[in-house]
Amino acid sequence: MNAPLFHIVLHEPEIPNNTGNIGRTCIATGCALHLIHPLGFDTSVKALRRAGLDYWPRLAPTEHADWHAYSRAHPAARRWCFTTKASRPFWDADLKPGDHLVFGKETAGLPADILAAHADTLITLPMVPGERSLNLATAVCAAIYEGVRQSVARGDITLDSAGRIINP
Amino acid sequence: MNAPLFHIVLHEPEIPNNTGNIGRTCIATGCALHLIHPLGFDTSVKALRRAGLDYWPRLAPTEHADWHAYSRAHPAARRWCFTTKASRPFWDADLKPGDHLVFGKETAGLPADILAAHADTLITLPMVPGERSLNLATAVCAAIYEGVRQSVARGDITLDSAGRIINP
Repeated sequence: MNAPLFHIVLHEPEIPNNTGNIGRTCIATGCALHLIHPLGFDTSVKALRRAGLDYWPRLAPTEHADWHAYSRAHPAARRWCFTTKASRPFWDADLKPGDHLVFGKETAGLPADILAAHADTLITLPMVPGERSLNLATAVCAAIYEGVRQSVARGDITLDSAGRIINP
Repeated sequence: MNAPLFHIVLHEPEIPNNTGNIGRTCIATGCALHLIHPLGFDTSVKALRRAGLDYWPRLAPTEHADWHAYSRAHPAARRWCFTTKASRPFWDADLKPGDHLVFGKETAGLPADILAAHADTLITLPMVPGERSLNLATAVCAAIYEGVRQSVARGDITLDSAGRIINP
């Protein structure tokens, strides 16, 4: 298996369908998934089978007890934190293979202490004024594909003649 | 209300949660939604309320009896058809405000006759080889945000100081 294109990090995700959908995007794009506890759902084999997440074992997400356990496990990670509180559009970030793309929980986003510790790498998906936010799984997919686009443009990964991602 | 940034066209969508999620992305980005019948679900007020789609009346999707009714209603539309059968990455298309982004049904994609009639504008979201496809709602969100990115880069729309989309 190649190194993951990106590491998708979900901080305390609440809705199992969203995490399942994000897992599907990770598999389709060759990304790794990290889940930071507490989770709003059960990741036992039985529960996953019941939810139809047959691809979950192949995805093999890494579960972390909390943010500190995650950050200790990846001390040198280049991290981008997605938040509606930022004004910098996500396409202004140079998303490079191996980067960690960090997303907060559905109802509250990332907590203030994580945002404060990453003030230089806060980015957002721009929206029209006054509207409710995007669904978490769709936002993650848009973020990953901006990273794919940039990575192809830089030559970090390539597309074959059928338009498939080749991660060397 | 401004002109829609993009027109998102769903051909015979099957899964109500996906269409609801796509509606949410359309509202957040100022896009219009078109639903081409038959649909795999009920769009009555009662059914939508039950599904928690409180924003549906404000989204006001346009429903079309079939593909021909839709294309007669928009004879001059610039159309991009998303399909896993194409090799051209979606970021190679110049996605301009007012363009129609067309997506097929979850289980089968767009039918052969529509693909054949749009051979010059078939585009895809690249994936790693051998994997199952993306969820429809996440693919639509990635497509819209590539269009937003391009539109900001060209100056067709702008971002305000808070990073919000301003569609003049």
